[in-house]
Amino acid sequence: MTTLVIGANGQIGRQFCELAQEAGEPIKAMVRSEEQQAWFDEHGIDSVIGDLEGDFRHAFAGCDQVVFTAGSGPHTGPDKTLLIDLYGAIRSADLASELGLSRYLMVSAMRAEDPLTAPEKLRPYMAAKFAADAHLRHVSVPHLILKPGRLTDEAATGKVATSLEEANGENGISRANVAHALLHVVQTRSLVDVEFTLLDGQRAISEALT
Amino acid sequence: MTTLVIGANGQIGRQFCELAQEAGEPIKAMVRSEEQQAWFDEHGIDSVIGDLEGDFRHAFAGCDQVVFTAGSGPHTGPDKTLLIDLYGAIRSADLASELGLSRYLMVSAMRAEDPLTAPEKLRPYMAAKFAADAHLRHVSVPHLILKPGRLTDEAATGKVATSLEEANGENGISRANVAHALLHVVQTRSLVDVEFTLLDGQRAISEALT
Repeated sequence: MTTLVIGANGQIGRQFCELAQEAGEPIKAMVRSEEQQAWFDEHGIDSVIGDLEGDFRHAFAGCDQVVFTAGSGPHTGPDKTLLIDLYGAIRSADLASELGLSRYLMVSAMRAEDPLTAPEKLRPYMAAKFAADAHLRHVSVPHLILKPGRLTDEAATGKVATSLEEANGENGISRANVAHALLHVVQTRSLVDVEFTLLDGQRAISEALT
Repeated sequence: MTTLVIGANGQIGRQFCELAQEAGEPIKAMVRSEEQQAWFDEHGIDSVIGDLEGDFRHAFAGCDQVVFTAGSGPHTGPDKTLLIDLYGAIRSADLASELGLSRYLMVSAMRAEDPLTAPEKLRPYMAAKFAADAHLRHVSVPHLILKPGRLTDEAATGKVATSLEEANGENGISRANVAHALLHVVQTRSLVDVEFTLLDGQRAISEALT
């Protein structure tokens, strides 16, 4: 019951991998290069080299679900947004479907369901996330979509909200809280075909994401 | 039986609109502004102002099929690729489905079925076209996808090929030939849920696209 982590070397990815490792949750971190692999080796985390813009099929071996947290930010440049956040997501979801995996867990973004409501600069990124999420809903693999708000570097509180109203209009969430939320949903296998907006808040993750 | 032309002010769009007008084929050209509308007024072509990055629902009134030829080039910048070629296509296909239109005709691109085989610079664009085409196949509106090769400004020959092999490896097609091919498929209502690669070649359009 191993989880493949696509985008493991990202800010959320690394934090999630450390939490999973501490919790004894079996994961395999997909990274781009041996240089990236060194950090995972040091932390005793199983890893595999895969190229999301090329060949990564072999990385799925022995895994029964996928976490996609590659890209995961509007500031990587729209070329990479198209190749990673959009097309990398589509290809990996198609592969998860083809291989009959049990779940695909996507780290999306809060405005992705309606990109035109986002600030103008963020709209191209949100359009990519919208299309990737829409594709995931269409393919034949059970899915779960987390939609964090504006990502911050605050410490984990373990407390979240699942709507802007519940968060009193505050649109931020720490990457650390996202990583904790990911661990919860990775371990809660009964959560399928659901989507959660994710913000810093007042509820325990295990109560908010059910 | 009017065809809404999204991207009518583009190079292929204008040529197609002129051909349709001469052929007596009812169309409505969707353009961005009154400045753009002037050209269509001069040519006696019905037009409507709609914003593909905003509101365009009203433009569908009285139309029973859609031609999407907005963007239609890898050189507009990836921000616009995300908002127009990807998200504009998705939104208009969803609307066509919601309104129960009879067909949605997409101008895609030859490499769109496998973006990673395209030259590196073109891959982000091809990824957008891939995702837009994939979405169109999923929504509940009959569709037709044209996949022209490298666009040129040569004169129309009216002769095309539908594979690289048939075109002896030549990967180009004139925008004028694409416009003629569009007119043919717009008028051939029996063509549904089919896709054609489109290159300059030796066969009459009406024989090649059946």
